[in-house]
Amino acid sequence: MTISQETFAPVKWEGDALLLLDQTRLPVETIFLTLNTPEEVWAAIRHLQVRGAPAIGMAAAYGLYLGVRGSQAADVQAFREELNTQADYLATARPTAVNLFWALDRVKARVQREGEQPVEALKAAVLDEALTIQREDAEVCRTIGENLLTLLHDGMGVLTHCNPGALATAAYGTATAPFYLAKERGWNLKVYADETRPVLQGARLTAYELQQAGIDVTLICDNMAAMVMGQGKVQAVIVGTDRVAANGDVANKIGTYGVAVLAKAHGIPFYVASPLSSIDLETPTGADIPIEERPAEEITHGLGKQVAPDGIKVYNPAFDVTPAAYITAIVTETGIFKPEEIRNSKK
Amino acid sequence: MTISQETFAPVKWEGDALLLLDQTRLPVETIFLTLNTPEEVWAAIRHLQVRGAPAIGMAAAYGLYLGVRGSQAADVQAFREELNTQADYLATARPTAVNLFWALDRVKARVQREGEQPVEALKAAVLDEALTIQREDAEVCRTIGENLLTLLHDGMGVLTHCNPGALATAAYGTATAPFYLAKERGWNLKVYADETRPVLQGARLTAYELQQAGIDVTLICDNMAAMVMGQGKVQAVIVGTDRVAANGDVANKIGTYGVAVLAKAHGIPFYVASPLSSIDLETPTGADIPIEERPAEEITHGLGKQVAPDGIKVYNPAFDVTPAAYITAIVTETGIFKPEEIRNSKK
Repeated sequence: MTISQETFAPVKWEGDALLLLDQTRLPVETIFLTLNTPEEVWAAIRHLQVRGAPAIGMAAAYGLYLGVRGSQAADVQAFREELNTQADYLATARPTAVNLFWALDRVKARVQREGEQPVEALKAAVLDEALTIQREDAEVCRTIGENLLTLLHDGMGVLTHCNPGALATAAYGTATAPFYLAKERGWNLKVYADETRPVLQGARLTAYELQQAGIDVTLICDNMAAMVMGQGKVQAVIVGTDRVAANGDVANKIGTYGVAVLAKAHGIPFYVASPLSSIDLETPTGADIPIEERPAEEITHGLGKQVAPDGIKVYNPAFDVTPAAYITAIVTETGIFKPEEIRNSKK
Repeated sequence: MTISQETFAPVKWEGDALLLLDQTRLPVETIFLTLNTPEEVWAAIRHLQVRGAPAIGMAAAYGLYLGVRGSQAADVQAFREELNTQADYLATARPTAVNLFWALDRVKARVQREGEQPVEALKAAVLDEALTIQREDAEVCRTIGENLLTLLHDGMGVLTHCNPGALATAAYGTATAPFYLAKERGWNLKVYADETRPVLQGARLTAYELQQAGIDVTLICDNMAAMVMGQGKVQAVIVGTDRVAANGDVANKIGTYGVAVLAKAHGIPFYVASPLSSIDLETPTGADIPIEERPAEEITHGLGKQVAPDGIKVYNPAFDVTPAAYITAIVTETGIFKPEEIRNSKK
């Protein structure tokens, strides 16, 4: 599978350069950066022009290729040293991004596996590994999307929350994947995107990427989801996840739990899109997932002007946990699972 | 009952001037304007420095007194003509505000009822009527608050939505009234205020006025209400209303319906505070209440910067309808009523 020019993707290898959608300009401007050096990739990662764990990893892998493609190394040993130097450099771009290290290590391991080859062949292996990382992520997303699509039908209304989208991945996203696949098939889904306060990933990112792809998307405030459901406008909810516990409880962006309760009250199925990599069988239940609290300023000042009084007490949890009982199914690249049977997804 | 200096009120008659809290400066600055002329009152109404139907009406009535208190009219007829001229002038400040005309007409009717009196006595009657309008509104709010307080207890957590607050009324507000009365009694209620997208009346107004009154208030985003309920932090929900239909369905600010569904799912009572004036027995059910849709820009650009892409489709209903089945009780100045028995409130 290749990521075509037509597929909405934030990171693309084009000819001999890396094209990167500058996410700091969203949702107002669509600007693809053409990056030709590892320094440019480092800066793009550092300045959040690329975001989302899979997308950051891919960008770093391509950056590594940009760093060694001009290598004049005389032998394999010298080439590997150059590769390590470039990888160490790129790893400093965002020291908290686990996926960044994972991708760089994977490229280095590939070169190790290649053994004694001409330097030019090793350069080609670096690029191939970067492309493989992207292709595999896109395949996971696409397969999740195909599995989800079996639960949907043409003409349906679907509500989503936050940005489980292509912008964070190689392509397709997770919960958004069926929307792109439905579009490819000529289906007309009506997607409702919660704006997702406080950081508005739904308004800034999901609404943007679906609009770019020509998908019928309507933006609503989070507190309008109940009315949209009550009016019969949606027949399914699909969300992403940060972590699935062994009992099928799901941690995701704040607001997900409320959407799940509303969906159940309206008899609407509630689906969670999750790559296997987000299923954590070492975590017994949702109660074992720590919930990060974020700064009050995201709510009081986060939107360009002050909207609450000085000194006001604020509660700002970044995530919530949706108990398994509210989840109709968790959909992975290996199939569709009842939450209480999520262990089977990894078998 | 008088509105003391200690009571949080947006409109106060003080000595010989009208003190008006400039609501356009909220929530960042607390500035009381001292108004001495009808022109100043006209400007304050026009520029939304006073808002909320009851508060606008009161301000206009005081403005009418400011317009005639210096009258040199030689007789009753001349005085009434001056009164009418001033009332016509003040009515142009905000031609869509029904309460504005109601209050001005009420003052004129009072002067009519006074009959043949010295002009100075008629001036006193004008001020007395303005004070009476304010006192009656405050009494309605306070009585609603006392009735609601019988449903609460010290130490409780209570969630509210939008600004059913003192800022829109003579004092106390409707749904907020029990919070002020609890404070007077030394109770410690923990209030959670939904920020109430898109216009953020909860963040800008409710959080502000409760903080000013020293009430323990915590601001949350609308999509956090479910988690707050799930964590057992609130034992009651109290909201206001724009209109109650004859079957007990309640129209209120968008998001109210979702809060009601969440409350029911968590076994939390859901109370609606409503003055009798908002109960409309001529409207059979909630389905007969028209729902205003407001401009997309409130969601996409309403907070100081653009947060969604150009041309995005938006659904922005201003209100929703909560079916009677989700409402534990509707509380008026005449008592506590099951929604299906709301007709009895007017008997």
